[in-house]
Amino acid sequence: MTNLPVILFAAKPQRWGQYEAPLRAALADAGLGDATLVTEAAPETVDYIVYAPNSDVQDFTPYTRLKAVLNLWAGVEDVVHNKTLRVPLARMVDDGLTEGMVEWVTGHVLRHHLGMDAHIHGQDGVWRAGIVPPLARDRRVGVLGLGALGSACAKALHGLNFDVTGWSRSPKSIDGTTTTHGEDGLADTLARSEILVLLLPDTPGTQNILNARTLALMPKGAMIVNPGRGPLIDDDALLAALDSGQIGHATLDVFRTEPLPPAHPFWAHPSVTVTPHIASETRPGSASRVIVENIRRGEDGLPFLHLVDRDLGY
Amino acid sequence: MTNLPVILFAAKPQRWGQYEAPLRAALADAGLGDATLVTEAAPETVDYIVYAPNSDVQDFTPYTRLKAVLNLWAGVEDVVHNKTLRVPLARMVDDGLTEGMVEWVTGHVLRHHLGMDAHIHGQDGVWRAGIVPPLARDRRVGVLGLGALGSACAKALHGLNFDVTGWSRSPKSIDGTTTTHGEDGLADTLARSEILVLLLPDTPGTQNILNARTLALMPKGAMIVNPGRGPLIDDDALLAALDSGQIGHATLDVFRTEPLPPAHPFWAHPSVTVTPHIASETRPGSASRVIVENIRRGEDGLPFLHLVDRDLGY
Repeated sequence: MTNLPVILFAAKPQRWGQYEAPLRAALADAGLGDATLVTEAAPETVDYIVYAPNSDVQDFTPYTRLKAVLNLWAGVEDVVHNKTLRVPLARMVDDGLTEGMVEWVTGHVLRHHLGMDAHIHGQDGVWRAGIVPPLARDRRVGVLGLGALGSACAKALHGLNFDVTGWSRSPKSIDGTTTTHGEDGLADTLARSEILVLLLPDTPGTQNILNARTLALMPKGAMIVNPGRGPLIDDDALLAALDSGQIGHATLDVFRTEPLPPAHPFWAHPSVTVTPHIASETRPGSASRVIVENIRRGEDGLPFLHLVDRDLGY
Repeated sequence: MTNLPVILFAAKPQRWGQYEAPLRAALADAGLGDATLVTEAAPETVDYIVYAPNSDVQDFTPYTRLKAVLNLWAGVEDVVHNKTLRVPLARMVDDGLTEGMVEWVTGHVLRHHLGMDAHIHGQDGVWRAGIVPPLARDRRVGVLGLGALGSACAKALHGLNFDVTGWSRSPKSIDGTTTTHGEDGLADTLARSEILVLLLPDTPGTQNILNARTLALMPKGAMIVNPGRGPLIDDDALLAALDSGQIGHATLDVFRTEPLPPAHPFWAHPSVTVTPHIASETRPGSASRVIVENIRRGEDGLPFLHLVDRDLGY
């Protein structure tokens, strides 16, 4: 009993309310029901930190026996460059998060494909017949970023018959989907994408990947769907492209500043749909099982799952 | 060469403009390039009629050598009870029509599942965080009607992880989907469906299948999606259920009178989305191949495909 791990839950207090019960249940299921799970502990006693990057723990130096930091979220940009962190960092890869993202992305891609907004807004007694969209097989969709989320979305869109091209920094392959990579591949993918989905991580190499130059490569009237990260887009360049008609619509779930300030021009722009970072979120039940699986692996001396490459930043 | 068939194209003139070229191409591909394809012919010379029920041909009696009537549309309610029709009647089963319907249905089911309208309408600077929908696997969707279109939609919704129940008059099975049938099955399916899709044919047995009694069986706030046929719904009962909140929203693509008259209360109701019979339409290219395949089968003495059961009415 002396070797049972001490687990510090370091996140905002409301998260503890959501996570305490499912974490304790997952620990019990894994034979770790007697582990210590707390929101405060002497740093030198802590084996694992279940971590939200906006928690009070920003200096990992005092955590001298720490084995791993287990991030609650998929995004790690606010912790990956913390120089006091010298132990493995795992991202959240939650089936529920992936499923929710696939549903949000397929839903909004279908919305733009079908031209739903004209009907949702146009309940004015005018029968606008004759505007039938092309079939999905004739609609070209691009997905930038082919990690767990991007790959799942590309597969689901392909399953709905869309003509999908996926792009990633380095070569990847996905069944049934054309993939491209590198700078040339990016230009090719942008040039063909009538609807573009952004699911890249936030790294120095991806910031402002959609800018005045790259937006101009897209087909006129193309639509942008961004459930990835706010800094992927140069906001001013996007607004200019929307005003000129180069981009037909942008559905944005993530922003450089969240909540998006009420005065931000995205709110009032007729060709922008703002959603409040709801494309998907980690679900406490399934996420707790993912975290406890990594604790169990650590206790059994097995390699951790979902490790972040600190050099790549994701 | 004397036995090449005479094919009468009986539909509105603008359809001839859409269909002449793809029909001739499909005939040539089938080795029937020398067949006679015309919009007017002496009735006693005609072997096949490619038919729209709103055409001038309403009395089939003079067509004494007719082998089959090949309907251009999936719906046959305006021809199936024509007592002068004494030869086989085939409906249109077009891959393009099915694909388009699947896209429209999955798009609008996802729209309601995700609560998109609140964001599409709510671009007012208010960050409505924290409203994350359940996962599709926890969302119960019903599909009434399991013909070619209903089955394809049920499968696609299941493929997106929705908890789907399909209902049809007589027992049917669909991989991965719970199916019910008969009156008891209908009540069970309505009682569990948070989102209900109507893809039944228009027959005396299906008219007003959604009425005050059956709408009251549904979960409070349920959503209706009707790309099937207008008469499936008792309009007044639906309006009352929308006003009481028993039904949360109705997205309707088909109506008892089309175009829907500007004064119809559906247009102005805040919980109704009217779309102008665009859920799907037959595509001339693929539809022409389906029609010519049946002509070829007729010429070769093979059974026709997609025959309508005149007693059942579909």
